[in-house]
Amino acid sequence: MGQYCIQLINPNTCQSMTENMASAARSVAAPDTRILAVSPDSGVNSIEGHFDEAIAAVGVLQQVNAGLRQRVDGHIIACFGDPGLLAARELASGPVIGIAEAAMHLATMVATRFTIVTTLPRTVVIARHLLQQYGFSGHCAAIRTIDLPVLALEQDSPLPGEKIRQQCIEAMKYDNSGAIVLGCGGMAGLASELTRELGIPVIDGVTAAVKMLESLLSLGLTTSKHGDLAYPVPKPVTGIFSQLNPAG
Amino acid sequence: MGQYCIQLINPNTCQSMTENMASAARSVAAPDTRILAVSPDSGVNSIEGHFDEAIAAVGVLQQVNAGLRQRVDGHIIACFGDPGLLAARELASGPVIGIAEAAMHLATMVATRFTIVTTLPRTVVIARHLLQQYGFSGHCAAIRTIDLPVLALEQDSPLPGEKIRQQCIEAMKYDNSGAIVLGCGGMAGLASELTRELGIPVIDGVTAAVKMLESLLSLGLTTSKHGDLAYPVPKPVTGIFSQLNPAG
Amino acid sequence: MGQYCIQLINPNTCQSMTENMASAARSVAAPDTRILAVSPDSGVNSIEGHFDEAIAAVGVLQQVNAGLRQRVDGHIIACFGDPGLLAARELASGPVIGIAEAAMHLATMVATRFTIVTTLPRTVVIARHLLQQYGFSGHCAAIRTIDLPVLALEQDSPLPGEKIRQQCIEAMKYDNSGAIVLGCGGMAGLASELTRELGIPVIDGVTAAVKMLESLLSLGLTTSKHGDLAYPVPKPVTGIFSQLNPAG
Amino acid sequence: MGQYCIQLINPNTCQSMTENMASAARSVAAPDTRILAVSPDSGVNSIEGHFDEAIAAVGVLQQVNAGLRQRVDGHIIACFGDPGLLAARELASGPVIGIAEAAMHLATMVATRFTIVTTLPRTVVIARHLLQQYGFSGHCAAIRTIDLPVLALEQDSPLPGEKIRQQCIEAMKYDNSGAIVLGCGGMAGLASELTRELGIPVIDGVTAAVKMLESLLSLGLTTSKHGDLAYPVPKPVTGIFSQLNPAG
Amino acid sequence: MGQYCIQLINPNTCQSMTENMASAARSVAAPDTRILAVSPDSGVNSIEGHFDEAIAAVGVLQQVNAGLRQRVDGHIIACFGDPGLLAARELASGPVIGIAEAAMHLATMVATRFTIVTTLPRTVVIARHLLQQYGFSGHCAAIRTIDLPVLALEQDSPLPGEKIRQQCIEAMKYDNSGAIVLGCGGMAGLASELTRELGIPVIDGVTAAVKMLESLLSLGLTTSKHGDLAYPVPKPVTGIFSQLNPAG
Amino acid sequence: MGQYCIQLINPNTCQSMTENMASAARSVAAPDTRILAVSPDSGVNSIEGHFDEAIAAVGVLQQVNAGLRQRVDGHIIACFGDPGLLAARELASGPVIGIAEAAMHLATMVATRFTIVTTLPRTVVIARHLLQQYGFSGHCAAIRTIDLPVLALEQDSPLPGEKIRQQCIEAMKYDNSGAIVLGCGGMAGLASELTRELGIPVIDGVTAAVKMLESLLSLGLTTSKHGDLAYPVPKPVTGIFSQLNPAG
Repeated sequence: MGQYCIQLINPNTCQSMTENMASAARSVAAPDTRILAVSPDSGVNSIEGHFDEAIAAVGVLQQVNAGLRQRVDGHIIACFGDPGLLAARELASGPVIGIAEAAMHLATMVATRFTIVTTLPRTVVIARHLLQQYGFSGHCAAIRTIDLPVLALEQDSPLPGEKIRQQCIEAMKYDNSGAIVLGCGGMAGLASELTRELGIPVIDGVTAAVKMLESLLSLGLTTSKHGDLAYPVPKPVTGIFSQLNPAG
Repeated sequence: MGQYCIQLINPNTCQSMTENMASAARSVAAPDTRILAVSPDSGVNSIEGHFDEAIAAVGVLQQVNAGLRQRVDGHIIACFGDPGLLAARELASGPVIGIAEAAMHLATMVATRFTIVTTLPRTVVIARHLLQQYGFSGHCAAIRTIDLPVLALEQDSPLPGEKIRQQCIEAMKYDNSGAIVLGCGGMAGLASELTRELGIPVIDGVTAAVKMLESLLSLGLTTSKHGDLAYPVPKPVTGIFSQLNPAG
Repeated sequence: MGQYCIQLINPNTCQSMTENMASAARSVAAPDTRILAVSPDSGVNSIEGHFDEAIAAVGVLQQVNAGLRQRVDGHIIACFGDPGLLAARELASGPVIGIAEAAMHLATMVATRFTIVTTLPRTVVIARHLLQQYGFSGHCAAIRTIDLPVLALEQDSPLPGEKIRQQCIEAMKYDNSGAIVLGCGGMAGLASELTRELGIPVIDGVTAAVKMLESLLSLGLTTSKHGDLAYPVPKPVTGIFSQLNPAG
Repeated sequence: MGQYCIQLINPNTCQSMTENMASAARSVAAPDTRILAVSPDSGVNSIEGHFDEAIAAVGVLQQVNAGLRQRVDGHIIACFGDPGLLAARELASGPVIGIAEAAMHLATMVATRFTIVTTLPRTVVIARHLLQQYGFSGHCAAIRTIDLPVLALEQDSPLPGEKIRQQCIEAMKYDNSGAIVLGCGGMAGLASELTRELGIPVIDGVTAAVKMLESLLSLGLTTSKHGDLAYPVPKPVTGIFSQLNPAG
Repeated sequence: MGQYCIQLINPNTCQSMTENMASAARSVAAPDTRILAVSPDSGVNSIEGHFDEAIAAVGVLQQVNAGLRQRVDGHIIACFGDPGLLAARELASGPVIGIAEAAMHLATMVATRFTIVTTLPRTVVIARHLLQQYGFSGHCAAIRTIDLPVLALEQDSPLPGEKIRQQCIEAMKYDNSGAIVLGCGGMAGLASELTRELGIPVIDGVTAAVKMLESLLSLGLTTSKHGDLAYPVPKPVTGIFSQLNPAG
Repeated sequence: MGQYCIQLINPNTCQSMTENMASAARSVAAPDTRILAVSPDSGVNSIEGHFDEAIAAVGVLQQVNAGLRQRVDGHIIACFGDPGLLAARELASGPVIGIAEAAMHLATMVATRFTIVTTLPRTVVIARHLLQQYGFSGHCAAIRTIDLPVLALEQDSPLPGEKIRQQCIEAMKYDNSGAIVLGCGGMAGLASELTRELGIPVIDGVTAAVKMLESLLSLGLTTSKHGDLAYPVPKPVTGIFSQLNPAG
């Protein structure tokens, strides 16, 4: 067992996506970091809107709770909408990072403006809200879509990759963007190759989050429990949510 | 049965709060509007942070789904954080209004700046994020708290009312605010009296949302299904969330 | 005489527009609401810029003053620039709503982003300033124009309607907007038909303002007289403006 | 007669204020600039709110129209709310400057943040809206008031001056502001003395506007007639506003 | 020797550009204003990015220091990035104006929105940051480029002028801009002719800055030494920067 | 020699500060990361304003150039104003991180709002501009100062540490901040102890930047050379800046 145990939470129930993201995470993790990849038992197998996100947020919280029992050191929410991020921070004792957050932050450090390439047009609004919340509305030149559902990324087809590359090329040409943020956890495996091929930083949130979380952990920085991210006010969680009662 | 049936969803499981809010809603509803007040079977009995909100959002969606089966005309999310608002709009065919949203909008129409008076300091961040999302950061002079938990409002004690009045008076004096937004559904019954006593508009979101929803309904305006609030992409919702599968 | 008497002020002197807006207003008003439609004696017959607006603002104030003498319950300013809105709020004892304001607010409740369709390109700046003042710059995807003068809407020609429909269709396609705000009081009669035809909410400010004003009135909420919207500091109004001296 | 003839429009009807502002304007004007100080025949004798401003805006336009007949080269709107600024720009062929605008612009060039010192608390909202419109919300550290009506500045009393100085001193100490913007045309005569006494730039809009207008004139820059500040769409202006028909 | 001596600092080492800008400056300066045009001994001969700007900023400071010894009254930084502006304000006793700043400010007074026309695409980010810092992001409709290096403007070729005119025409047509800001000191001589030809204000920062600086000087306004623009904390400046030690 | 060689550039010439920061950096660096701590030969020994920053920026660039010759992998600019950051990014082939940037980014991941504690009041404006540039104006609750010069941190006195702790405590109490950002490189050694003592994350930019830079390096992400951060346009750098000519 490694120095740090990072829980990589895939908020959807698609097992192949969990495995792909775990693989990407492990490819960049420090040698002594252990990646514990999980996904909720209940929920939806892809997240493509606010409805899916609301469901997934509870799934994330259940996994965080399970992670607390396993004494993991930190948590990654591996869906580009960062579902349940602030709720997970309340619940967790360690740091929690969302993959959209991680990718956007790093993008601002290697370029003055970036383009997001995501899946379905209906998810653009989610990215736009995150940009506003994180403070990066002025750093994002455009949000582009490949107009394919999330699970198309899990199929053995070259189409999604081609469409992503095409959008990246257009971003360089028309948006004058210096970097690309891949707007879906399912695109995790493509970043390195696109970075090499296009000659600009193409950033995947899963790998970005692993390094950000390792950074926080090694600096001894964790979610502030002073103020609005303090542990939830103790109260019973009833019915179908009873798994969310405090780990004990 | 009335012309419109409005589903008033209390996102927490506290039955007395549901009843109090239903009472406030009925006091302002049009004679032929029916208020169907509900709350989730599962969840938490008060909402005081992001963790509670994430749970409540799913409870809201389940109730929206139930409301669809009952062919209600529109939905109100009666918790000041407006949990699950955009998700509910995806799911619903009719309009959906949050009580924070309703109160904030109306406040901007009767004053140039308003103060929010809410419960626990840890919920201030939730109000601040809503202000940003709705566009009203510049219209809110301050967010004040009474530093009491939500359920204190359900007890037979004069303390919460006194503290709220005190904050309203300070808002008039120190914030130069022309209106007050009550920052908790549990304060629904206090608005009229405070409005009279203080001589400025004190706005409760529950009653505000009833009138806004009636307004949308009578104008024939409903949640746009073009674009990002379209019905959720059809996919199975599994496990504990299976109640969220489409009404049919 | 009805429960509420709402003064619908057409800020320009075009009588046919007053009548058309009154008709639209009455079509959505509650059965016991009386719509008192008026327009200034002096002024311009259409409002297509800041110069026209400045003149119209005084006309609005004169009508508000007349309305106060008639003890109307609230006032609607029925020109998309909302001319004289804050001045009218100072003068009035009851609530005052502008039609741009009303339409924009409702649009944010049924879609995440909306497009405004207005008349002449030179009025775009007026809409842009209102968006900024009301907090909705981030909610408006685009402002489109039909490039016809306001009074073209009063003529018996299909052209304006066709051009408006065309812009709505382009807004759905290119702006990814979920709702349309009609940017001129003269378009009041078109909203319902366009809503049905296009399948997205097309919002007219006149009808929106009627319902918003009824909402405020039934909630007992009126313009705050604490602070900057207090009644004007008493002083003589001289010369051509003497009609603006306090009603008494 | 000088090289440039600048029309200094006092939007209120208080003659002593017109004279004081004219005197301040002449004290800084170039030797060959002629200051033509005017005020409306009709209106209010001080401007202390939106209602007063709406009236004054029409008075400003009438004076601009008169100025056009006299072939003045440019216009100054000498009230801190800049009433009718964009309308006057439409009407005028030459440049038009508001005194709030002029003072705020210059303040950003001599300090990183400034404080506005104005008269009545109810006018704070007017200054705040101008800051937002001009882009200077982030450059203004605070808006302070002396809580005296505008015309107190015209009386032979040391009180207003003392209160203004006191607010300037507090601005230096508590707001960390590097410059003061005097928030009323009636304060025009105080800037030089306060600048000397306090050792920081204290900026009066009347004198600032004279120099800005001379700057525009000598650069050959005038109000753009391309787009939204083009001359008003020709149409009759009727009734009490008939003086506003085009100069001819 | 004139009433005011203005130091016009060309931050690059290109002597022909210094002379051209001096010529433009003198063409608008008051008869008794003396323009002292200088450029650094060390540095780069054109400024086309942040690296060039950082070097130029020190060159500017050295010239300001030299100007202080010569008792000049104020300083102009004549490169569109306004390199070293706040540092120069700390160092100087008199006012300091940047040409981007001057042009942008004046543009907002003659049009509601303007377009910037600059040289290389890589400098767009510099203009964008200045707009944000000065508060004018909302007043700039677009930043256009001619895609030629700065020194192309110094060559005897009609190409740059033609490309600039072409971009101005497109700005009028596609950006709906009412004014143009020329985005390079090397374009100083083109403003008047373009203004005449295109019929809209085309603003050059060099001439604009001369008039703004004369304005500040004649108003007795200078850089505030209270707070963050106070003279630099005294300390030795060593090595290659030793020329920056205080004038004495 | 380690896997990565990180150049830690202290922009001022104070050798003890370089050593202290190097020590802090090494305490968190990965075992195989080599920290190469440098400072400019020329410049100022502390940075307390824009003037100092402008000088330091060139010192930073000279060190980056030296680092390129030594084939370092990335660069840290270890002064809280991040002097020369974008210029260094143009010059460098690897990633460049500023310590203010690093600390602010991490702060947003462990708290919803943070307070900056810096040295002299005159540097507050620098922090404020960085917050705006990086997008974090809304995430910073306050900027507090200890009102001591930078070099006080290098003396063997408990006073600075006590004042910092006092400001942190007040930030927790009055700003409701969940995290502290230490606003000076000279405070690097205090973060861990304060974090433990106060029970909230206290973030030092030096250590934060080391981990962020390691993160970028291990992800294969480097400064984008597409667009505005491309290598400087080749041109001679003359005179005292000749050290800035390309490494070769």
